[in-house]
Amino acid sequence: MSWPLHSALLTDLYEITMAAAYFESDFQPTASFELFVRSLPPERSFLLAAGLEQALDYLEGIRFQPEEIEYLRRQPVLANFDKAFFEYLRDFRFTGEVWALPEGTPVFGEEPLLRVTAPIIEAQIVETFLLSNLTFQTMIASKGARVAAAAAGRPVIDFGTRRAHGPEAGFLAARASFLGGCTGTSNVAAGMRFGVPIFGTLAHSYVMAYDDELEAFRRFEELFPEHAVLLVDTYDTLAAVDKIIHSGLRPKSIRIDSGDLCTLSQEARRRLDAAGLNQTRIFASGDLNEFVITDLLARDAKLDAFGVGTALATSKDAPSLSGVYKLVDLVSGGTTSYRAKFSEEKVTYPGRKQVFRFQTAGTYTGDVIARDCEAYPEAWPLLAPVMREGRRLAPSPDLRQIQEYARQEVAKLPEPCRQLRPGEPYAVRFSRQLQSLLEELRERDTMVSKRSG
Amino acid sequence: MSWPLHSALLTDLYEITMAAAYFESDFQPTASFELFVRSLPPERSFLLAAGLEQALDYLEGIRFQPEEIEYLRRQPVLANFDKAFFEYLRDFRFTGEVWALPEGTPVFGEEPLLRVTAPIIEAQIVETFLLSNLTFQTMIASKGARVAAAAAGRPVIDFGTRRAHGPEAGFLAARASFLGGCTGTSNVAAGMRFGVPIFGTLAHSYVMAYDDELEAFRRFEELFPEHAVLLVDTYDTLAAVDKIIHSGLRPKSIRIDSGDLCTLSQEARRRLDAAGLNQTRIFASGDLNEFVITDLLARDAKLDAFGVGTALATSKDAPSLSGVYKLVDLVSGGTTSYRAKFSEEKVTYPGRKQVFRFQTAGTYTGDVIARDCEAYPEAWPLLAPVMREGRRLAPSPDLRQIQEYARQEVAKLPEPCRQLRPGEPYAVRFSRQLQSLLEELRERDTMVSKRSG
Repeated sequence: MSWPLHSALLTDLYEITMAAAYFESDFQPTASFELFVRSLPPERSFLLAAGLEQALDYLEGIRFQPEEIEYLRRQPVLANFDKAFFEYLRDFRFTGEVWALPEGTPVFGEEPLLRVTAPIIEAQIVETFLLSNLTFQTMIASKGARVAAAAAGRPVIDFGTRRAHGPEAGFLAARASFLGGCTGTSNVAAGMRFGVPIFGTLAHSYVMAYDDELEAFRRFEELFPEHAVLLVDTYDTLAAVDKIIHSGLRPKSIRIDSGDLCTLSQEARRRLDAAGLNQTRIFASGDLNEFVITDLLARDAKLDAFGVGTALATSKDAPSLSGVYKLVDLVSGGTTSYRAKFSEEKVTYPGRKQVFRFQTAGTYTGDVIARDCEAYPEAWPLLAPVMREGRRLAPSPDLRQIQEYARQEVAKLPEPCRQLRPGEPYAVRFSRQLQSLLEELRERDTMVSKRSG
Repeated sequence: MSWPLHSALLTDLYEITMAAAYFESDFQPTASFELFVRSLPPERSFLLAAGLEQALDYLEGIRFQPEEIEYLRRQPVLANFDKAFFEYLRDFRFTGEVWALPEGTPVFGEEPLLRVTAPIIEAQIVETFLLSNLTFQTMIASKGARVAAAAAGRPVIDFGTRRAHGPEAGFLAARASFLGGCTGTSNVAAGMRFGVPIFGTLAHSYVMAYDDELEAFRRFEELFPEHAVLLVDTYDTLAAVDKIIHSGLRPKSIRIDSGDLCTLSQEARRRLDAAGLNQTRIFASGDLNEFVITDLLARDAKLDAFGVGTALATSKDAPSLSGVYKLVDLVSGGTTSYRAKFSEEKVTYPGRKQVFRFQTAGTYTGDVIARDCEAYPEAWPLLAPVMREGRRLAPSPDLRQIQEYARQEVAKLPEPCRQLRPGEPYAVRFSRQLQSLLEELRERDTMVSKRSG
C-alpha cells in the first residue's frame, strides 16, 4: 500500500458483498449518494468542510491489487461467486461524478458535503473511505477555527501529532487545522506535503540533556539565534527566566509548558521588560484548548502565541461527527427512482440536493436544503461539480487559498454562530418540494408495506 | 510515502532542530527515553499495551528520502547548518535498543510501555511516531476490552472505520480492538494485513436500492444463504420481521440498527421463535458502547451479537491518552547521568526502569516501578528486550496469540479493575531506590539552580 492510502480494501466488507450481489444480479443502476453530518455536536455551531482534496485523490487512484483480489476470493462469504466478479474488480475504476462543497465552506447538520453519482457498485465501495476522510478533516478544521478564534489574532500552532489517532491522523490534522485558521504545525511531513508552515525548536529533553539548564539555552541560542524558543519550565520557570536575563541572552521567544500560565507569563513578562527584553515573546503550550485560551486572555495573561496539541488533533470535546452516506436516487434505463429512509429515529430525504445560502448585507441569514432542480436566484448554491467520469475537473486549490476563503466565509456567519458557546442556531430548513417528495415516498412505502405485510 | 508510513518526516520539527543542534555541537551521547501514559482516563481502570509491531516496523524502516532532505534544507530554521548534517540524515538509520511490554499486557499510569536506548538524535527523531502509534492502539485495545467484556461472551464486531480519525486510524483500530477482545472487524484491509476476521453483508442502501424490501431480502438470501444478516430497520422493523417470516426465508441473522433495541429484539425474538426460526440470530448495531450493551443485556434484550462503531474506533469517552516520552538517562564515555523533570506539575522519574508485577493465587496484587537493576524474585518483570542494533529480536507474535494472552492477563487482574465503572485502583508504586534517585537529582539541581541563579 502506498500513501495516500488508495487500496480499495480500505472499506467495509459489506460494500464488497453488496457489490458482488449487484454484479451477480446484473443490477447496476446509476446511484446517487449524499454524504452529510446528521447534526452538529453540542459544542459546535458550525463545521468547516474539509478533506475534499484527499477524497478526490482517492477516487482517482482507487484500485484492487491482484493480491487483494486473491484475499477476497479466499473469504468464505464470497466463495459462491465465480470468476467474472473478481475480473470485474481487477479492472475496477471509479468512473462517477462528484459534486461537493468547496473546502473551507461553513456547513451545518443535514447539508450534503459531497454527492457521488456513479454505477451503484462504485458508489458503494468508496463510501467508507469518503466518510472517514471527510468527516475527520471537517471535524478538525472546525476545531481549528474555534481555537484560532479564541487566540484572537495570536498565532496558534498545531502540536497534536503525538496524541493524534495514529501517524496519518496527525498528518491530516495538521492540514485540517491550518485550513481552519491555525498558523502552522509541528508536523514536518504535513509541511512538505501540504505546504503548512512548520514550527518548533526544542523540547524538555534538550534542556535535560545538559547538566546545566543555562548551558543548554546558550548552545541552542547560538545555533538558532533567530528562531530559538527557549523552553523555561523544565525545572523552575521563573528561575530559568532569570538565568536568561542575567546571562545576557536575548531570545526571540520563551515557552512555558506547565504551571499557572497566567501568573507565570505575567511575572515573566515583567522581568523580561524590566531587563529590556521587550522583544522576547512568550509562547504557551500544555493542555490548551479554546476555552483555556479565552480564559487566559481574559485574565490578561501575557501570552503572544499558543501551541495546541491533544484538544486540537483529536477534537477532544467532540471526537466524532455523525457522518453518513445515504442513497438518494437510482437511475436505470432513463427512469429516476427516489430513495429515502424513514425508520423510527433516522429519516433521510430523497433525491439529489443543493444547498442555497441566503445573505443580507454581507451576513448569512440561513440555508435552504432543496432539490437540485430548484432555483433560488437570490441565494448562492453551495455544491459544485468537482469530478466527472472519475477525473477531477480542476486542480485542488492551494491550502492557503482555502484557509483565506474559510476565514472570509466564517466572518459572514451571524454573530451567535461565531461564539464559542453556541447561541441561536443557524437557520437551516428543507424546501417544500423536498418535503413533498419525502411525504410521497413515505405514503407509497406505507402502501407497499401494507400490500406485502 | 508508502504504508506503513516510515517517512522520517512524520515527526515534530523540534526533533529535527534538536538533532541539528546535537550534531553541530558533536554532542551525541546514548540516551534512554521511556514512553508511558501519565495517568489513566477517569473511565479506565487498566490499559492494554498495543502497537508494538507497527512501532518495530517503523524503527526498522525509518529513512529520510532525498526529496525530504531537500525540503529540510530549504527551511529557514535550518539555513545555518552545513552539508554534514544533511549527509548524516541521508544515511540515517535507527540503530538502537528497545525494551517493551508485550502487546496485550495490562498497563497502568506511569509504567513504561517502551524504552528506547540509542544515540540521542535517533532516539529523538522517532519520538513522535512512537507516541502516536502506541498510545492510539493502546487506547483502542483498552476500549475494545471493555466493549467485549460488556458483551459477556457474545461476538462484538468493530464497525468503526467510517467514523475513525481518517482511513489509517480505522485500519489500526480494527487491529487494536481485536487485540483487546473483539471478534472481528468490517475493515477488509485490516483483515488482509493483520488477519483480523472480517464481517459484514448488507447496508440500508441495498434494501433501499430495490423497490420492495422483501425483494431485496430474497435476492440477498439467495446469494448468501449461509452468511446473510438481513437488515430489518430500513422502514419498519417488526413489519420487516413479519415479511421475512411469511415469505418462508430462514436467514442466519437479522440486524436491527435503530429504534428501541431492547423491546424490538424481544418482540422480534418472540415472532421468530413462534414461526420456528429459533436459529435466526439477532444482531444489534447503532451507537452502541459498553454501557449501552450492559444495559441492554441487563434488561434481557434478545441480542446475540453487536456491531460497535464510533465509540470503539474513536474511544469516544476517552479519545486521548496522556502519553509522554521522557529522557531518563544519558551515557557518554562510560558515564551514566540520570535525568528527571520536576517542574511544578509534572515530575518524571530518572533512570531506566523495570515494572515488576506481583501475584497471589493467580491474581495480580500490584506493581512496583523500579530501577532496572533491582530484583524482585517473587515478581514478574514486564519489560523485555525486543530490538537490538535496530533489528527486532524475534518476529512479532500472531495477533490471535496476542488476543489470547491479553484475555488471560486481564482475567488475572483484581475484580474491581475489571469492572466497567472503576473501583479501587490497581496498586502501583515506585520503588524506594527510584525515589531516592529522584530526590538526589532534585537536591543536586536545586544546588545548581542556586549557584547559577
